[in-house]
Amino acid sequence: MTARRPTIGVFDSGFGGLTVLKALLEVIPGADYIYFGDTARLPYGSKSVETVARYAVEAAHYLEDQGAGVLVIACNTATALALDRITAAAHVPVVGVVEPGAEAAASVSKNKKVVVIGTEATVSSHAYRKALEGRGLDAREKACPLLVPLVEEGWVDHPVTEEVAHIYLGEAFGDGFHDADALVLGCTHYPLLKPLLHRVAPPHVRIVDSAESTARVVATRLQKLLPPTPAAQVERRSLPRLKFFATDSVEKFRRLGERFLGHSIEDVRHVDLKE
Amino acid sequence: MTARRPTIGVFDSGFGGLTVLKALLEVIPGADYIYFGDTARLPYGSKSVETVARYAVEAAHYLEDQGAGVLVIACNTATALALDRITAAAHVPVVGVVEPGAEAAASVSKNKKVVVIGTEATVSSHAYRKALEGRGLDAREKACPLLVPLVEEGWVDHPVTEEVAHIYLGEAFGDGFHDADALVLGCTHYPLLKPLLHRVAPPHVRIVDSAESTARVVATRLQKLLPPTPAAQVERRSLPRLKFFATDSVEKFRRLGERFLGHSIEDVRHVDLKE
Repeated sequence: MTARRPTIGVFDSGFGGLTVLKALLEVIPGADYIYFGDTARLPYGSKSVETVARYAVEAAHYLEDQGAGVLVIACNTATALALDRITAAAHVPVVGVVEPGAEAAASVSKNKKVVVIGTEATVSSHAYRKALEGRGLDAREKACPLLVPLVEEGWVDHPVTEEVAHIYLGEAFGDGFHDADALVLGCTHYPLLKPLLHRVAPPHVRIVDSAESTARVVATRLQKLLPPTPAAQVERRSLPRLKFFATDSVEKFRRLGERFLGHSIEDVRHVDLKE
Repeated sequence: MTARRPTIGVFDSGFGGLTVLKALLEVIPGADYIYFGDTARLPYGSKSVETVARYAVEAAHYLEDQGAGVLVIACNTATALALDRITAAAHVPVVGVVEPGAEAAASVSKNKKVVVIGTEATVSSHAYRKALEGRGLDAREKACPLLVPLVEEGWVDHPVTEEVAHIYLGEAFGDGFHDADALVLGCTHYPLLKPLLHRVAPPHVRIVDSAESTARVVATRLQKLLPPTPAAQVERRSLPRLKFFATDSVEKFRRLGERFLGHSIEDVRHVDLKE
């Protein structure tokens, strides 16, 4: 008998969580993955706590029903607004992106002063500020609602996006925060803007992308959950199985998703959450 | 006994339809209005036909249950993708924004050549092109996915928005369409950008906003539905009753909605569409 490979459920409102899945695949290649993108109801970033929590709990249950043994909330808005509720509603361990992101920021910031950019909802929740202040850091949060549509338009290296980033970061690093030395990407769309943000942010600033630190937290969590299996008993299959579920058009998911994941997306199924 | 004032149900995915409500209030001040903004599931503009149709039919039934005697689909995407299905599912007359917009464009264009700007979903449906070609006009449709988020960011007269409009309109009026002489605003968010679009569009271009022509079509439809009532029997109340329903935060609806309607919004209630 072979030991079962863990199945990791990854949830996002749409495509951004695929940047987290990409990091997970690098850090934990020995798992299988099911990804749920709630594309019929995206974006979450402009919505209220109640609405986001309800949507996220539905998605978490769906991933559990599909066999996920651990859930990664690969959406900053859902983590910031609803991690407690998702954790309470789920029957498996749940990992969000805010705590790992805050931990990574704390480890790179020398001045203990950081800027966090994210959606309107993530910023209003102050989840990052609380997580960072709990680690002794001073944090300024700045909502950047235009960055997600700019990424989805494909303008990841475009003069307009650079101008928008100049305006947002100018405000974020102004007025008492000139010496902040880390920029936390508090939205899973933003890793696609990393080269541009490097150009626009003050030169002394380190960019913190929570995808990688989240993947490492998940790996540690899995080691605790699954006792090491003798190599002979591990199912010998080198490539992870990837299954994708989307609440809107699968064709669009495939097309747009490939930009975020960095390679082709094959197995996408449509899900209807009984609305 | 006094004759009942008509109640007009106005539906949009969010706030944009308030520009149509504004036009309706001017053209038909003697009616009452109920407005439904499906803000928990906006935007529709990036979603598929199936999803938009399902959402729109649910909203139409809600407005009927609330007493609407006629339905105005004040959302270009919902009209373009789902007007037939909404009309089939509804028990009262339904008016969309595409046909009135096409009619207005046909009446102002001398060259019989027009540009239509809208969301990705509206443009992909080719609803405007079909409506315009049916009237003997040549039409180019151009998706402008960044304009809605720019309006919602409040950047209605901002250099970044002007640059984005230059890029989009440059493509739309290029390559064989230099002589198009009308620009149809195929999204109910865009009327807020009218002054900026006037500056950016070629100087010979007339801007067509379907809100006003839709309001006139609704007025004509009402005259047919409701036989003229002797003045003495009409309920003597000069101001229309306005009721608003939103599927996401009512506070946010009030705050953002006022920008579109042009005056304060009082009576907003939260609706949960049993998801």
